[in-house]
Amino acid sequence: MIEKMKQKLRIIKIGGNVINDPGSLQSFLEDFAALEGMKILVHGGGKKATEVSEALGLQTTMIGGRRVTDTKGLEVVAMVYAGLLNKNIVAGLQALQCNALGLSGADANSVLAHKRPVENVDYGFAGDVDAVNARAIDLFLQGGLTPVFCAITHDAKGQLLNTNADTIAGELAAGLSGLYEVELIYCFEKKGVLLDMDDPDSVVEHMDSNSYARLQKEGVIVAGMLPKLKNCFEALHRGTARVVVGSPGMLRDREMKFTTITL
Amino acid sequence: MIEKMKQKLRIIKIGGNVINDPGSLQSFLEDFAALEGMKILVHGGGKKATEVSEALGLQTTMIGGRRVTDTKGLEVVAMVYAGLLNKNIVAGLQALQCNALGLSGADANSVLAHKRPVENVDYGFAGDVDAVNARAIDLFLQGGLTPVFCAITHDAKGQLLNTNADTIAGELAAGLSGLYEVELIYCFEKKGVLLDMDDPDSVVEHMDSNSYARLQKEGVIVAGMLPKLKNCFEALHRGTARVVVGSPGMLRDREMKFTTITL
Repeated sequence: MIEKMKQKLRIIKIGGNVINDPGSLQSFLEDFAALEGMKILVHGGGKKATEVSEALGLQTTMIGGRRVTDTKGLEVVAMVYAGLLNKNIVAGLQALQCNALGLSGADANSVLAHKRPVENVDYGFAGDVDAVNARAIDLFLQGGLTPVFCAITHDAKGQLLNTNADTIAGELAAGLSGLYEVELIYCFEKKGVLLDMDDPDSVVEHMDSNSYARLQKEGVIVAGMLPKLKNCFEALHRGTARVVVGSPGMLRDREMKFTTITL
Repeated sequence: MIEKMKQKLRIIKIGGNVINDPGSLQSFLEDFAALEGMKILVHGGGKKATEVSEALGLQTTMIGGRRVTDTKGLEVVAMVYAGLLNKNIVAGLQALQCNALGLSGADANSVLAHKRPVENVDYGFAGDVDAVNARAIDLFLQGGLTPVFCAITHDAKGQLLNTNADTIAGELAAGLSGLYEVELIYCFEKKGVLLDMDDPDSVVEHMDSNSYARLQKEGVIVAGMLPKLKNCFEALHRGTARVVVGSPGMLRDREMKFTTITL
């Protein structure tokens, strides 16, 4: 039996380095809108959430780079991620003729999670993803819409949860790989995985499980990259066709180096 | 030629009297989730926006009962309406097995507006509706989803706009009446249009253009009801099958009176 060719789908995650600067965001949205084919955008927004928390007189607690989300903090991230940032990104894409649809994981039950159990650390209303509703997302994609996900999920019991945007992007890639040939693209502040942290151009252009193991053993991969790469390989093991890690500039500049990761 | 029977669609608008009290909101969401057939929810949220504005040290200016939306005020309503309130309502409905999809007018270009021109009053980023994207909303309804609209629209040039929720509900009713037989239901703090403001049970159970003109002439209809009734009759003139005005309790209590308005 011949398997039907899957349609290609790009899932692009952007973080604070793009979102916090209006010029960078506009430039990225233009590049994203110009991409042909089906696509999904996933965005973070932690820095703006911290700003709004401060303006409200609330303290932000981070443990190991992760936000501790109490009741008031959850209100802030729901406001900032799902409201302010998500709707401005959607409106910005609409102005570029990209028919965007902003989503939290509660919308159309698209990303289901559970509250992270308290072990050594209580992260509060932090959500770990259980399932992606591929059918609903497929309805949107086939309807000509471009989903734009913020980093909010829900537990199907009425509770919103704060979930890492990198994780959501990886889960979407894995969850949609049954229907699509997915390329997962993580945009961040560097051009890719670097061999030498002091040389921004020392990009590892191709990485697979073997070279990853070797580079890790040699101590070339810095600690900060490890959770990101773990996400990448998990997405690959769960069916994602390939993962790209690089600067948002790679979408515009064809000469710019980036890292492609395969199994 | 026999016209194809249109499917029925209910569009229900709730305001502050439901949203600002967690018990009332939960009770309403249970009633809404239990309604059979296709449905859309439209919600306001002005009181919460005012609270958050105050917490941020911003002043809220109202002229003639309408919010003046400056740049900071627009950020607040985008956060509160599209983020905090919309996503909590969606999560609450998901917990009740109602597959809700939260939307601003920017999402899927569903409600297009323009910034209200400055005449005597500058309302800032207030949007007057130009068009409803019936095709996109139909895609969601036919996909088994229940759209939940907040009171934010966009101008297709990247600008979010603050738009009265009553107006959005009326525009959705008119815009979807080509595809559906629409019943537009306005929930508010009274049981309906009252003959005697001091008697909460003096509900006008049926109203049409003639009785409306007569009651208006007799001075029975109080000033506060006039813009709401103007919205109702405009929706009817633009194809809405019927409009209901009443207390949210009418969804649960079959004995409760309400006002039905037809042309």
